[in-house]
Amino acid sequence: MESMDMQLWYTEKQTPNFGITAKIGQTLHHEQTEFQSLDVIETEEFGRMLVLDGMVMTTDRDEFAYHEMLAHVGMVTHPNPKRVLVVGGGDGGVIREVLKHPSVESATLCEIDGRVVDVSREYFPAIAGALSDPRVRICVEDGIKHIDAHPEEYDVILVDSTEPVGPAVGLFQRPFYQGIHQALRGDGVMVAQTESPWFNRDLIVQVNRDIRSLFPVTRLYTASIPTYPSGLWSFTLGSKERDPLAVDPGDIPELATRYYTPELHHALFSLPAFVKELTEQE
Amino acid sequence: MESMDMQLWYTEKQTPNFGITAKIGQTLHHEQTEFQSLDVIETEEFGRMLVLDGMVMTTDRDEFAYHEMLAHVGMVTHPNPKRVLVVGGGDGGVIREVLKHPSVESATLCEIDGRVVDVSREYFPAIAGALSDPRVRICVEDGIKHIDAHPEEYDVILVDSTEPVGPAVGLFQRPFYQGIHQALRGDGVMVAQTESPWFNRDLIVQVNRDIRSLFPVTRLYTASIPTYPSGLWSFTLGSKERDPLAVDPGDIPELATRYYTPELHHALFSLPAFVKELTEQE
Repeated sequence: MESMDMQLWYTEKQTPNFGITAKIGQTLHHEQTEFQSLDVIETEEFGRMLVLDGMVMTTDRDEFAYHEMLAHVGMVTHPNPKRVLVVGGGDGGVIREVLKHPSVESATLCEIDGRVVDVSREYFPAIAGALSDPRVRICVEDGIKHIDAHPEEYDVILVDSTEPVGPAVGLFQRPFYQGIHQALRGDGVMVAQTESPWFNRDLIVQVNRDIRSLFPVTRLYTASIPTYPSGLWSFTLGSKERDPLAVDPGDIPELATRYYTPELHHALFSLPAFVKELTEQE
Repeated sequence: MESMDMQLWYTEKQTPNFGITAKIGQTLHHEQTEFQSLDVIETEEFGRMLVLDGMVMTTDRDEFAYHEMLAHVGMVTHPNPKRVLVVGGGDGGVIREVLKHPSVESATLCEIDGRVVDVSREYFPAIAGALSDPRVRICVEDGIKHIDAHPEEYDVILVDSTEPVGPAVGLFQRPFYQGIHQALRGDGVMVAQTESPWFNRDLIVQVNRDIRSLFPVTRLYTASIPTYPSGLWSFTLGSKERDPLAVDPGDIPELATRYYTPELHHALFSLPAFVKELTEQE
């Protein structure tokens, strides 16, 4: 033993050749669920961190950026979202944001791994607390099956998946988006998290192409999330009718947010050239 | 020795508790200059990486984002930039971007450490090549002294400093910005790199306050740079006359860029709430 003052660091290889490393205190929880490994780690820089299969899902400090940006752009694009589905997202963060919209009557969480919900309730009360809201229904089941069983049911569907490996592979494929299209009502809107414009360019191009083939309005936007690969994250929106660029910022309800604002809404769709080109490939 | 297939990784602690790690091949260069340690490393993910005092300055793969975004927003804000100064930036990347503007008659690089220029010419020809342009003048001297010796000389001044430790501390303080104000002509524009909105919030607030106290127009904007701390980087613009928001995108010259576009120009100033609030503190 070289020193009694041992420092522990958690390192995630976000690509085979690049990653992040964070100084950690206690590991608060570790288990192998039916679907994946699940860890909760106390980090110095980002507070508590939820890790699935060795990939950071959320942290206390930067979770607001991801959860707000996955939820509000699509919610605001729909003129009157009453019935909302979140696929994945067992930590409850997207549901919390969805519930900030006063029009919402029901918010369904469809998470394949019930242990993510249980552990998030225990270790991330500020994120998962909203799951106790009476408008929330939690379904522990495969999102693909849920979608197929609920045609024309939802106004907004938000896909808060893990990375496109393991249980989430199907959530990045055209049949799933086709199912979403069918599960949405006539003016429905979907948004999916679609990885990093620096590291996952082929995937973004493919998803954009698939969603464009189903939805008349398809838009890509990004947000800064420091604990995700490259720190820049993309979201792909598909809408049956309304264009997010047609939303009047004055009509956006006042929301308690730290990232998304009505002023930001339109600016989000002006993309750096190296990102924009991902949406222009046939 | 545990394995013959040894993997080498370069890790930068970007804060005391967080950092990035990159798989590396050869270290191409290492020296201790008069001012700092200087390394050139071959990485698998980002190509060659220039490292000063253990901090990533630029890489082959993401350098365009930083260099374009430091240069073009200020250059476009000035109606007719002829004489431009870059403080720091010995790798030549910002100078390369400045020279894309046809109005430029002279581009001065004021770099305190001549070894950065020499090593960049050798290992980063695609970045430093522009330093051979006949419009470029290279001054190996302290930027603070250069600024003080050239009153009302420049149309645009771009501050491409290292982090606010060691030789660059003075480049984040009000006397330096006051010197810049004096070195600029009547319609002059300055832009400085001002660190991460996630990790350097106090610094951004202080710089914004200082520049606001000197320039009637002060604006903050950001860009995605994956090898910089948090992946989100801020830039602070000070202008004596013209507001970047008053620039007509139709008047922006066609530039060969991969990040900055005329369409992006206005959108850059719509900031996430947690960034915008840094500009609103007295």
